[in-house]
Amino acid sequence: MIVQKYGGTSVGSAARIRRVSRRIANTVAQGHQVVVVVSAMGHTTDRLIALAESVNPEPPARELDMLIANGETITAPLVAMCLAGMGVPAISLSGAQAGVRTSGQHSRARIKDIKPDRIVEALGKNQVPVIAGFQGVTAELDITTLGRGGSDTTAVALAAALRAESCEIYTDVDGIFTADPRVVKAAKKLTHVQYDEMLELAAVGARIMHPRAVEIAELYSVPIHVRSSFHDRVGTMIVAHVPMEDRQRVRGIAQETNVAKITVVGVRDRPGVAATIFEPLADAGISVDVIVQNIGRSGHTDLTFSVAESDLKAAEKLVKTAAKAVGAQRVSSAAGIAKLSIVGTGMLGTPGIAARMFRALAEAGINIEMISTSEIRITCLVSRDQVGKGVRILHHAFELDQDLA
Amino acid sequence: MIVQKYGGTSVGSAARIRRVSRRIANTVAQGHQVVVVVSAMGHTTDRLIALAESVNPEPPARELDMLIANGETITAPLVAMCLAGMGVPAISLSGAQAGVRTSGQHSRARIKDIKPDRIVEALGKNQVPVIAGFQGVTAELDITTLGRGGSDTTAVALAAALRAESCEIYTDVDGIFTADPRVVKAAKKLTHVQYDEMLELAAVGARIMHPRAVEIAELYSVPIHVRSSFHDRVGTMIVAHVPMEDRQRVRGIAQETNVAKITVVGVRDRPGVAATIFEPLADAGISVDVIVQNIGRSGHTDLTFSVAESDLKAAEKLVKTAAKAVGAQRVSSAAGIAKLSIVGTGMLGTPGIAARMFRALAEAGINIEMISTSEIRITCLVSRDQVGKGVRILHHAFELDQDLA
Repeated sequence: MIVQKYGGTSVGSAARIRRVSRRIANTVAQGHQVVVVVSAMGHTTDRLIALAESVNPEPPARELDMLIANGETITAPLVAMCLAGMGVPAISLSGAQAGVRTSGQHSRARIKDIKPDRIVEALGKNQVPVIAGFQGVTAELDITTLGRGGSDTTAVALAAALRAESCEIYTDVDGIFTADPRVVKAAKKLTHVQYDEMLELAAVGARIMHPRAVEIAELYSVPIHVRSSFHDRVGTMIVAHVPMEDRQRVRGIAQETNVAKITVVGVRDRPGVAATIFEPLADAGISVDVIVQNIGRSGHTDLTFSVAESDLKAAEKLVKTAAKAVGAQRVSSAAGIAKLSIVGTGMLGTPGIAARMFRALAEAGINIEMISTSEIRITCLVSRDQVGKGVRILHHAFELDQDLA
Repeated sequence: MIVQKYGGTSVGSAARIRRVSRRIANTVAQGHQVVVVVSAMGHTTDRLIALAESVNPEPPARELDMLIANGETITAPLVAMCLAGMGVPAISLSGAQAGVRTSGQHSRARIKDIKPDRIVEALGKNQVPVIAGFQGVTAELDITTLGRGGSDTTAVALAAALRAESCEIYTDVDGIFTADPRVVKAAKKLTHVQYDEMLELAAVGARIMHPRAVEIAELYSVPIHVRSSFHDRVGTMIVAHVPMEDRQRVRGIAQETNVAKITVVGVRDRPGVAATIFEPLADAGISVDVIVQNIGRSGHTDLTFSVAESDLKAAEKLVKTAAKAVGAQRVSSAAGIAKLSIVGTGMLGTPGIAARMFRALAEAGINIEMISTSEIRITCLVSRDQVGKGVRILHHAFELDQDLA
């Protein structure tokens, strides 16, 4: 059994729905049981949100969910009827009908469990279940949506619930690359990526898979195959362990350009200061990313952190209030920053990787503003106008433009 | 408690949704409990059907229902969030959430019962329930649609289930007129129409209310107020009994131009012939309307009946097969026919009305091809190019252009 998820671009027109349906029909003809998850067509969700805002600039979350869920419940029956026209029996199911039970946090609901009775029933009748992704239903039968990466999450959660062999994520790119191919012409497609590498890549700007879907896949050991809906070539497998020869090295370069930094200058170096500053941001749903605290002089320190540039205005306001409360000297901020990351399992155990990164950037005249590391990632914050150059330099420095073993 | 139903034109744009919401808010401010039923915006349903046909020219009925039900579940949350923005708490409900249980005949499901628990709960919290019309759900939780006149049917059925004071049907016309105002400039708006008159008017071409909604209203004694969503003036009340002075007279002239006739020539005059001819039409969902059988000579007779011109091709094919089976001589057909009807309770008991109709048409040089009568209606089939003239002639002949008492 295979779960296939088709994103908005893949089902963006009647012609594309026909193409997707042919692919599903082929998979069925090869003897697989197929469960399909679909997103809203093209820009449908954006159009529905625009319609909502034209009648209420701040629509209640329950009603907005009820509205935008229509995007996926339009695609699902279209794919099901297209399959039927090709002689492949199919049945569309809303999130509610597919048994996707969620929490009640509208616009960012979490899947609590899946009762896939109707999916199993359909498979038993040799029907292809075509499920509206991105949505679920509360215990009170209110429609919820899952937020960013929602359809991927539906697909992976279904694959876990149904113990499917794998979950194929069809998209408009060929797979996961060593760097963004629009930035680095020599970027290579990776045949395998580990869950943890994918999580780091997603966290630092690779938009292909949302971390929450990858997390569920890792938890339930669901292999994910990220591939293009425009041709039949294989894409990238996301799995627990990549082949031995791909380990212990830098696997990819990621970038994220929507970054700004905020510095709280002259903070008293005592317990509770960071909490006072970051709690209001968390309450407002603003993610704080890289945090650096300089070594203090005479009991004072500077605290610098990055936020999404789109959150900068809101964040600055909250931080200024908090900074006053903790008696900081002042707050400064800067937009126009970017994150530049190298990712690879076992990197930390390989001496010299960080030094090689810093050296390569220095030789290219790129100044590093902040540094953050995890077990499998090193991130440098640099000026945004230098990030493209930085990605290319690092891609070459770590020999990612060589053919992979 | 008032049930208000807003049709597709009334909610056809964001601006119109705001206007409709203001009207609902005003009704709430006047101290009424309001339950709202909405149709799909403008041409949404047509667009969804076109999309379906572009992926499958003969989409399975279950999937088509699943698809087009989105039209109403888009409007409902838009109206609910617009109301919320005006400070009127509101909650949108799909047919399933509103407890509209139907039969499983997709695209023409019948309401079996309504379990309005969530509607009652919402009203108890002073929320305006905004219900997606035209749709319901089977015992298996499959989405169904109610077919033509579906949203009106939802509204009237809800008014009956909730024992509402009245059911207001908002539309793009001012009410029920003595004739189509586009054809007869002097047409007058009727203040009251009886259920049975409305049924006859609908059956012969007045498109404002679908007969099935009127039937439910009559069965459960729900007064219907047909009125415009573009101004506040009262429209037409559809009730069990009109005021005394409006009875015993012709109340309206109706026309229907999508008519063709089929004649089976030289049928043996024996039992079972009509059944053999009409059963295949019924099985194919083709409505047969006026049926006339001439008096036979030497054991043979001609059978003539009318069908919708849009059904003519399909009907002819079926009738030719059946005619062969009963040994008829031949089948002939003609398009370009129209129905011209006068409607009014108690007409049958008023001598001379039929004669007056036939005389008026004769004097205008309009040939009558077929005649059909009911207790409260006389219908003449005439050439389509003469129907406009016929409506004007009859409107004048029955003094409908006089101010009503």
